[in-house]
Amino acid sequence: MSAFVTRRRVEFADTDAAGLCHFARFFVFFETAEHELLRSIGAGAWMPREGRVLGWPRVEATCRYLSPAFFGDELEIRLAVTRLGSRSASYEGGVHRGETTIARGRWSVACCWIEDPRRLEPTPIPQEIAAGLARHRADG
Amino acid sequence: MSAFVTRRRVEFADTDAAGLCHFARFFVFFETAEHELLRSIGAGAWMPREGRVLGWPRVEATCRYLSPAFFGDELEIRLAVTRLGSRSASYEGGVHRGETTIARGRWSVACCWIEDPRRLEPTPIPQEIAAGLARHRADG
Amino acid sequence: MSAFVTRRRVEFADTDAAGLCHFARFFVFFETAEHELLRSIGAGAWMPREGRVLGWPRVEATCRYLSPAFFGDELEIRLAVTRLGSRSASYEGGVHRGETTIARGRWSVACCWIEDPRRLEPTPIPQEIAAGLARHRADG
Amino acid sequence: MSAFVTRRRVEFADTDAAGLCHFARFFVFFETAEHELLRSIGAGAWMPREGRVLGWPRVEATCRYLSPAFFGDELEIRLAVTRLGSRSASYEGGVHRGETTIARGRWSVACCWIEDPRRLEPTPIPQEIAAGLARHRADG
Repeated sequence: MSAFVTRRRVEFADTDAAGLCHFARFFVFFETAEHELLRSIGAGAWMPREGRVLGWPRVEATCRYLSPAFFGDELEIRLAVTRLGSRSASYEGGVHRGETTIARGRWSVACCWIEDPRRLEPTPIPQEIAAGLARHRADG
Repeated sequence: MSAFVTRRRVEFADTDAAGLCHFARFFVFFETAEHELLRSIGAGAWMPREGRVLGWPRVEATCRYLSPAFFGDELEIRLAVTRLGSRSASYEGGVHRGETTIARGRWSVACCWIEDPRRLEPTPIPQEIAAGLARHRADG
Repeated sequence: MSAFVTRRRVEFADTDAAGLCHFARFFVFFETAEHELLRSIGAGAWMPREGRVLGWPRVEATCRYLSPAFFGDELEIRLAVTRLGSRSASYEGGVHRGETTIARGRWSVACCWIEDPRRLEPTPIPQEIAAGLARHRADG
Repeated sequence: MSAFVTRRRVEFADTDAAGLCHFARFFVFFETAEHELLRSIGAGAWMPREGRVLGWPRVEATCRYLSPAFFGDELEIRLAVTRLGSRSASYEGGVHRGETTIARGRWSVACCWIEDPRRLEPTPIPQEIAAGLARHRADG
């Protein structure tokens, strides 16, 4: 297996009056990294198919904050798939600035058909996407 | 004890292309509710004192998503203090729309002097703030 | 005529590392105030009707920043309709903290059927909504 | 002269329930592009110097929305300096997806010492930064 790695810079709008990258933004950083991982395996985070959209709403999300990040910091975000169920998956991720670990996250997503925001219908993860995710298993 | 209760409406900028309130915004909802709780006990989320600022950086934050929320929904947010340490505290919160529980969160904060964003110095929770928080203990 | 007035507090997630309310958030403040105005006249910012949704995408938006706003500030937001066309409308708004004017904005919206995000179809402003908006004309 | 060009992808958290990139995010896109331009000329958007910070608060910002952008779109952002005063500057920018112009923006910034968020002190743009900005004059 190999972790999926991407980078992003802390933008001014990501910061708060304490001078730090606001804690809620790390959840966006992880989500965007997950979407890049999906794109890298030929899938999408938002795939129109047969008049519906296949999406990945979050079931749970956690982040531990180990060291602050600041405006302009170039961050490395590393993801791995920790669980691959038939209709859901779990990820873990780390945010790093050089040798410093900024944050660690864990989250689970459900594979759902979204026909209308008021109807999210869990569905099996398509075979080819499951195969792509399996290549990023933490224990693979 | 009594939970601290506040309300807010899901704004358009809180939503995403799935038509739902974006999952990361719930962390902001909980943080803002915590700040209102602090204000209600005569404290502040950001208290200048003796040339420094007393703030509450997050150590960890978790949210479970039970049911989606939509643009315009009026949400009730309920908080309780689940742990009151000498230099840190933990909260739990629920987001509700009428009888429906939308999300449940748990998070921990450290009481810190912030002199400069690059120096966060943990410090004991001031007596009068600890007393105010104790009135919202989950098990109080 | 009377301006439409609403209030909101600057949240921590609204601030940036300069210690100020981030400039882009004022556009969200104005949009949310506009949605409250629409709600107050019995309309909605996002009205499902006959299988489609009536919405108000922005055509242009401007803000002038006169004085900074800070975390915890309680802001008053005042709106007026400056132009009421058959398929579009323009607003002006002010953000105030007590006697201090923080920002002034102007923006235009188009009344559109949204069937699919990729198809925005301009449509006449429904009669009853136009009547409600007219009650908040700046020059009424 | 040459415009400064950068790219970014529309993230899920940038979108709204209309399925579009939320209009207020374009102001963040332009601000971040401006910060990249500053970095490219050896300056910073947030430069600690002699115990203070040199920053660029916005005086005014405008955006016209010409065509919607969607989740996953890879956008090109082009900036040019349209006015270079002694203590302030103005920019114009365009957001493009291939041949389609999504949005056009104009904004002005003041060069300020920020010692404390409550004290923004306008100051002349340092010589070397002015020279760098001049290389991106729209009419240069």
